[in-house]
Amino acid sequence: MTETRVPIPTLERLAIYLRVLLDAHEAGIQTLSSQEMEQHSGISAAQFRKDLSYFGEFGKPGVGYSVSGLIHCIERILRLDEEQPILLVGAGNIGSALVGYPNFRAHRLRIAAVFDNNFVKIGRPFGDLMIEDIARIKEVNAEIGARLGIIAVPAHAAQEVADLLVEAGVTGILNFAPTILRVPEHVHVRNVSFLQELAVLSYHAVEEALCVNGQATRGGKDGV
Amino acid sequence: MTETRVPIPTLERLAIYLRVLLDAHEAGIQTLSSQEMEQHSGISAAQFRKDLSYFGEFGKPGVGYSVSGLIHCIERILRLDEEQPILLVGAGNIGSALVGYPNFRAHRLRIAAVFDNNFVKIGRPFGDLMIEDIARIKEVNAEIGARLGIIAVPAHAAQEVADLLVEAGVTGILNFAPTILRVPEHVHVRNVSFLQELAVLSYHAVEEALCVNGQATRGGKDGV
Repeated sequence: MTETRVPIPTLERLAIYLRVLLDAHEAGIQTLSSQEMEQHSGISAAQFRKDLSYFGEFGKPGVGYSVSGLIHCIERILRLDEEQPILLVGAGNIGSALVGYPNFRAHRLRIAAVFDNNFVKIGRPFGDLMIEDIARIKEVNAEIGARLGIIAVPAHAAQEVADLLVEAGVTGILNFAPTILRVPEHVHVRNVSFLQELAVLSYHAVEEALCVNGQATRGGKDGV
Repeated sequence: MTETRVPIPTLERLAIYLRVLLDAHEAGIQTLSSQEMEQHSGISAAQFRKDLSYFGEFGKPGVGYSVSGLIHCIERILRLDEEQPILLVGAGNIGSALVGYPNFRAHRLRIAAVFDNNFVKIGRPFGDLMIEDIARIKEVNAEIGARLGIIAVPAHAAQEVADLLVEAGVTGILNFAPTILRVPEHVHVRNVSFLQELAVLSYHAVEEALCVNGQATRGGKDGV
């Protein structure tokens, strides 16, 4: 690996490009220009070219980017060129939504095991899986070798689950619980917080309403 | 309003502080120092003080911050000092998870109506609500006056739903569909993308595994 560490905003944009490319691929599109990419991703063509230049030369002048070629490159960069198994902890509503989420497979992501501590749930089917006892997570992951874990349990249980995931060998955690997790330095956490997102929107929603009701607008396009 | 527009990273951190403060309030804690805030939020005490200084003077030297006082201030800044009704579109798995999410109320957020276009679902109960026909969204929101909307429908339907939400008066959209939405300038969108988050984690998870297996580590703390 001669690549240096890729900054997180670049990784985030690569994931967006990948989604656009997979959609294009499914639609039978073989090449995309950086302008078309801008149209579909909402990220400027200049930024797109800059992000890719980080990894070497892609695309041909006047021809554009090979959709399948670029998919392979981005998958390799994001380590999605081979299937990534994921451990899911929490067989509740969010867990159900995740197990039923149709787009994982296109990204080579696969929920490989689901765990809960509720004895009523353990042993029951959950999507294509069977709910396993959280106490067995280390043992189960010795087989699977997953490095990614998802926490979909209530806030009060999330830290304990994070500790168990780390002990089981997970180094990347997607956390749905509204709490801050403490993890060792080598473990990365990404938080999905509905409340945080809605709180940010709340501010803007009311601000915009105030603007629309008489004060200066931000000079945006006309509303629909 | 003499406040200037608050930058998004500040709003995101305010939402995190609010969560910590609401937890502290529930635990009966009356004051918090900025160091305690750092411990609970994962955000440095210096950043916390800087974020607050943006809005005036808070806290007393040697005494710390009044939990309830600061809750009120942040709620006011985030426009969560009165209840914010939300329109939810999509009565599927993600919608169920949201309707069952226990922490909305503490943030004065309330899913006020849920819509779907599936005639089998329309009229059925969904949490405490009844699923309404998406065709009636404008009419229903004329009563409710919600400015926030949540899109929890498949990607191919998301743009159409966004257009309907905007038409119904929504100016802030939380989008769970893996697609980029086009909205007028005055509308804010926040995307929740499991795939994007997992793709970013995937990169780091494999990188860390490479480091742990022989190469130089990042000089982090010792693992647990």
